[in-house]
Amino acid sequence: MNLKKIGNIKFVDGGVCAAKGFKANGIQCGLAHKPLTSTEENSAAANNALPSAKKKNDLALIVADNECTAAAVYTTNKVKGAPIIVTKEHIADGKAKAVIVNSVNANTCNPDGIEKANKMCELAAAELGFAPEDIIVASTGVIGQVLPIEPIANGMKELAEGLTYDGNSRALEAIMTTDTQPKEIAVEFEMDGKMCTMGGMLKGSGMIHPNMATTLTFITTDAAISAEMLQRALSDCVKVTLNMASVDGDTSTNDMVCVMASGTAGNKEVVTEDGDYESFANALYNIMLNLARMMARDGEGATKLIECVVNGAASARTAQIVAKSVICSSLLKSMIFGEDANAGRIYCALGYADADFDISKVDVDMASAGGTIALGRKGCVVDFSEETAKSVLAEDEIQILINLGEGNAAAVAWGCDLTYDYVKINGDYRS
Amino acid sequence: MNLKKIGNIKFVDGGVCAAKGFKANGIQCGLAHKPLTSTEENSAAANNALPSAKKKNDLALIVADNECTAAAVYTTNKVKGAPIIVTKEHIADGKAKAVIVNSVNANTCNPDGIEKANKMCELAAAELGFAPEDIIVASTGVIGQVLPIEPIANGMKELAEGLTYDGNSRALEAIMTTDTQPKEIAVEFEMDGKMCTMGGMLKGSGMIHPNMATTLTFITTDAAISAEMLQRALSDCVKVTLNMASVDGDTSTNDMVCVMASGTAGNKEVVTEDGDYESFANALYNIMLNLARMMARDGEGATKLIECVVNGAASARTAQIVAKSVICSSLLKSMIFGEDANAGRIYCALGYADADFDISKVDVDMASAGGTIALGRKGCVVDFSEETAKSVLAEDEIQILINLGEGNAAAVAWGCDLTYDYVKINGDYRS
Repeated sequence: MNLKKIGNIKFVDGGVCAAKGFKANGIQCGLAHKPLTSTEENSAAANNALPSAKKKNDLALIVADNECTAAAVYTTNKVKGAPIIVTKEHIADGKAKAVIVNSVNANTCNPDGIEKANKMCELAAAELGFAPEDIIVASTGVIGQVLPIEPIANGMKELAEGLTYDGNSRALEAIMTTDTQPKEIAVEFEMDGKMCTMGGMLKGSGMIHPNMATTLTFITTDAAISAEMLQRALSDCVKVTLNMASVDGDTSTNDMVCVMASGTAGNKEVVTEDGDYESFANALYNIMLNLARMMARDGEGATKLIECVVNGAASARTAQIVAKSVICSSLLKSMIFGEDANAGRIYCALGYADADFDISKVDVDMASAGGTIALGRKGCVVDFSEETAKSVLAEDEIQILINLGEGNAAAVAWGCDLTYDYVKINGDYRS
Repeated sequence: MNLKKIGNIKFVDGGVCAAKGFKANGIQCGLAHKPLTSTEENSAAANNALPSAKKKNDLALIVADNECTAAAVYTTNKVKGAPIIVTKEHIADGKAKAVIVNSVNANTCNPDGIEKANKMCELAAAELGFAPEDIIVASTGVIGQVLPIEPIANGMKELAEGLTYDGNSRALEAIMTTDTQPKEIAVEFEMDGKMCTMGGMLKGSGMIHPNMATTLTFITTDAAISAEMLQRALSDCVKVTLNMASVDGDTSTNDMVCVMASGTAGNKEVVTEDGDYESFANALYNIMLNLARMMARDGEGATKLIECVVNGAASARTAQIVAKSVICSSLLKSMIFGEDANAGRIYCALGYADADFDISKVDVDMASAGGTIALGRKGCVVDFSEETAKSVLAEDEIQILINLGEGNAAAVAWGCDLTYDYVKINGDYRS
């Protein structure tokens, strides 16, 4: 998919290892319940199946050479994965040096969850020579199955010894579950005359309806910034990026976004909202914007990215509520999958948005690389060419453009189409 | 499906014609855009297709012999079908004598919608000898296509002349869109020593997430009750029946529930909340409860009814929010379709409910005609027999039982599984 570039940044390779001084690794420690039989393997290969948790990396480390300032935002689900609770404690001091993360098992709704999450930190700390409290821990996978600690304990030495400054892809593979595409990005930007680098990776495909945070996202940078400013930039960015994306309306129990900033780029530490802070926040925005779009595009079963752009709103909040209402509509998502320009469904979905605006002022257009088409004016569906609509909808990135005709505020939200494969993937997720 | 019976009522046949003095009829007036080709007909027959709007009744009348008190509740979508606006005016005086309703075209988001809705009332009034203001008008179908009035004008005479005291099935067929099952019910109950009868019909399969009202539902009764008490009973009943059901989270633009009470049963008119009011409200509850369950069971593409029962809540509001959060979860709906007992997804869905409760007190069970199984205790998933879970999930009415362990309030919500067919039906709804 096309990357969006905002402001003065340059895209570079390397993901979470792009910034100086960050090593990563991922291994298959064997958290899957059972190995695939050869019949299952053949069948998976024949069906061009999703990367199976049973055959891919399932445990990752990201480690900074230097102590970092750290910030995070977490899911608002009242059911919180045990790693969320442990991570909150560990970065309460605004410091961290490493991330340990596993897939396959979410370590959530288990009686011994906290104990196991602490144990993961201890095991990593012992290999790395850190205190466990310097470590961020995260888990993703099936909820409500006790996490077997043996495979993690057995694999930790290999995992730590294999850390390299270009290990981002191995780590990224280890956090994927139903993701069909790896999702990472990195940018260079300047602050205080110094070249800084920031990179991130994200997992997430289903159970995605971020609220405060989303999914698992890890971001590293060599820029110097205080923990307080780092948290502010992250919290602000989440609102207009990950929190504006939804795959299925289900807010996960294990969502978290963590950023670690090592300061090795040599810039003067950012401690207030000055021009350098703006540069930093813009770099973070580019990272999170593109990760959010990648996540929506790779939503479970998705074939198309839906981008809803709302303009002309009286307030940003109204624009956000309307944009999110549209991308969350099951009817709209099905219609985009079917490439059917049913304008009434767009009006229906914005009409039940929980915000105040005058429906008789609302214009609706649809756009893509295949063209642009007016679907509605002032609350009424207009005549349009089905042929043009077809060519717009044939693309795999579809924009729904809404103008509320009331003010100057705007918002963008990202979703994906609802397909047979979403149902298939989630009809039997555990096995 | 099994009917639920609450209190002292008796189920009878006849739907909206069960009550004395109500005639109904439905015809195919030809609102479909184009007739099916013979190839299409054969193909539809070969695929055992849904009743096609192109081959079935599309215009209905329900007419009372006597003037009725009337009450209604409507969708809260800001986009409102033109018939909603006209009906609101017509029953502002608490009186009505007939319902005219069409399917195929929702008469919504059209520049001439109000004019056409008024015209429908005038055409019906001319045949029936009423004032147009005594007529309730409703439309359902595609949004944003101008309603052709000619077929309605041409068919009205035949429609009115064919009215009979047992025409409920013909009328019901005319309001169905993607419904695969007709949904009607009637009950007898006693008030003031007089036998009263009440019956209703409902259409609704997709775009269903009621808020204040839902879908199209028409209820008739020969009981005598003031317009004020009728509205109160209806508004109260909607909250715990139709508003607790959801198919896809999409609140329609044309939802309405109307009740007409003719008073010919001879009971003393109900004018306060006395024992007779309780009997009346209980009959209405039985009608709407069962219609809501039928609607959820026949949700677009659905193979299973999901009933979520929440007990032990500190307040009814909390119980309602939790129950509805669970039945709306796409992940849970897919998992029920796949017959997978993924207890973590139930905890996830109740955990993001927008209500206050302590997750560490929450127990979760699942039940059906195939048995009952404990899935979680005090916030943690417990070990359970996959074999029992399989036998519970093999049934087509699944109960999810949640106990919040905090109080005595309860609520029930109804939904359905999310299936390939939902996506198929909505991928190309207009053609």
